[in-house]
Amino acid sequence: MKKRLHLTDFLKGVKAGNRVILSQAITLVESTLESDQNLASELVQSLLPETGNSIRIGITGVPGVGKSTFIEAFGKMLLDQGKKVAVLAIDPSSQLTKGSILGDKTRMETLSADKRAFIRPSPTGSTLGGVTGKTREAMLLCEAAGFDVILVETVGVGQSETAVKNMVDFFLLLMLAGAGDELQGIKKGIMEMADALVINKADGDNLSMAKKARVNYETALHLFPLADKNWSPKVLLASSTESEGLEEVWNLVQKYLDQMKGNGFWETNRAAQRLNWLDDQIQFLLGQAFLKDPIIQKMLEDRKPKVQKGELNPSKLAKSLIQLFFKK
Amino acid sequence: MKKRLHLTDFLKGVKAGNRVILSQAITLVESTLESDQNLASELVQSLLPETGNSIRIGITGVPGVGKSTFIEAFGKMLLDQGKKVAVLAIDPSSQLTKGSILGDKTRMETLSADKRAFIRPSPTGSTLGGVTGKTREAMLLCEAAGFDVILVETVGVGQSETAVKNMVDFFLLLMLAGAGDELQGIKKGIMEMADALVINKADGDNLSMAKKARVNYETALHLFPLADKNWSPKVLLASSTESEGLEEVWNLVQKYLDQMKGNGFWETNRAAQRLNWLDDQIQFLLGQAFLKDPIIQKMLEDRKPKVQKGELNPSKLAKSLIQLFFKK
Repeated sequence: MKKRLHLTDFLKGVKAGNRVILSQAITLVESTLESDQNLASELVQSLLPETGNSIRIGITGVPGVGKSTFIEAFGKMLLDQGKKVAVLAIDPSSQLTKGSILGDKTRMETLSADKRAFIRPSPTGSTLGGVTGKTREAMLLCEAAGFDVILVETVGVGQSETAVKNMVDFFLLLMLAGAGDELQGIKKGIMEMADALVINKADGDNLSMAKKARVNYETALHLFPLADKNWSPKVLLASSTESEGLEEVWNLVQKYLDQMKGNGFWETNRAAQRLNWLDDQIQFLLGQAFLKDPIIQKMLEDRKPKVQKGELNPSKLAKSLIQLFFKK
Repeated sequence: MKKRLHLTDFLKGVKAGNRVILSQAITLVESTLESDQNLASELVQSLLPETGNSIRIGITGVPGVGKSTFIEAFGKMLLDQGKKVAVLAIDPSSQLTKGSILGDKTRMETLSADKRAFIRPSPTGSTLGGVTGKTREAMLLCEAAGFDVILVETVGVGQSETAVKNMVDFFLLLMLAGAGDELQGIKKGIMEMADALVINKADGDNLSMAKKARVNYETALHLFPLADKNWSPKVLLASSTESEGLEEVWNLVQKYLDQMKGNGFWETNRAAQRLNWLDDQIQFLLGQAFLKDPIIQKMLEDRKPKVQKGELNPSKLAKSLIQLFFKK
């Protein structure tokens, strides 16, 4: 049996950038055991002064867009610049699909093999609230371990994009040209959250289509208003296999950060993200306590069909359930 | 002092389409008194068999787009067709702005004066969850009172659009041409929820600009994939002052409904909306109970600045607060 590490072991190991201990620390964060959770809370709290200094980038796009190849190429370029890169994934459905990045890890050969990189699949968990909390803590642990850039990957077809947007500095959407936009299955609303669109696989026969798509997307994005931060999303071309356009993406991220640090948005956004995290977790834990209650479970199961059919007033049922919950 | 109505009085009055009693019933739903709330729950529950038969249309757009003029003209056209029309507003910020529709009511002169129309300003309430629950019950009451079309108005700059989308059959976004899209302040993501975009004030000198804008929006909307319901949002032109284009909007709504009832989406959507309502209310009531707790309030107030500055782990604080809450 593995020797159980103490708080000081974790602290020392993570601060030293020990990848094995970092990995164990994240496992601790992901544990559902009460004792583990308490230790994890202490650990993250103690490490807070060492956090916040990385550049956090969210990357999304549907399966087939070449996310893992892009992350591999983009990550490698950052490593070549002397940066330490961590890749985290967020995907609440991953316990069904066995984790999109779990397979990716073996495909991200260069990153996996490099000591300056760290790849972590999505934590298991049935609800988004649970998964996002864990990913956020994992991100802080990576920062404390000295990683300069954190890439947070999401699948791009669900609701996890808002969660990722709420934990990163820069949100990047990968697209393909000519795949037929309808086929790309990007949920409405995701395109609008992006700080940049990158049209991937912009090489060979694809290049002219990619250039055309770029103009189309630029026109479409132009119709949307600038957000508070006064940034209009850019559209870039990249080829992960040819390692082209990657530096442009990185330059754009840096330009964005310069601008956002200059106008104060970066700091405001980070503060807002922390409060959002708190709200998220409170809501998640309240809901969890509620839905764990066997009497509530039984009553919900029994009454839901009646609500669906319009035979039972949802407001009334909600009120009864809450009264029942707090009476006990 | 007004005589307190009993359940049977309310039932009889609402079913008879008595607008005074309908109005009092909605006030009952909006009341924060425990006894009123219980009576309101009973009332809505008893009326459920009489509900669900109206066409529910959400209408949004920023201030200045001409929402009240459009609703006035559109509502009048429906009255002329022999329909009964109710207008409800949802705007959680209305206790600050004193209600957008409160002023509108006096401007909607035709509708206000007509016995077949019913206009109700947004309920007061500090949170969206509270306001949406009340608006949903008010909608059911209007249906039980025999209204054929319910127009749910929202301000179009906040988060209330998702809430409205979740309670209507058809979601309509009003836009202006040539106001400079950046100036229209429509939140990203709202355009994508729309089943139809209506470019309002498409008359006089505006007409050619409106036609051009229509092409632009059609192109932009084309880039987004069709939703599950296999409907691609349409862009229409309308002039509320000239009463032009209004029948086209109504025809589109009916075409949409025919199609959605044919492919089963309408029923699935209504059932999903009812469950969403239940979830919404549970979440709202749980949060309310939590935030009403004076000890929680004090601790939150005390710790929030530390969270914002990144000095306190949000997950840890959330956990402590929840433990504290349930320990009592």
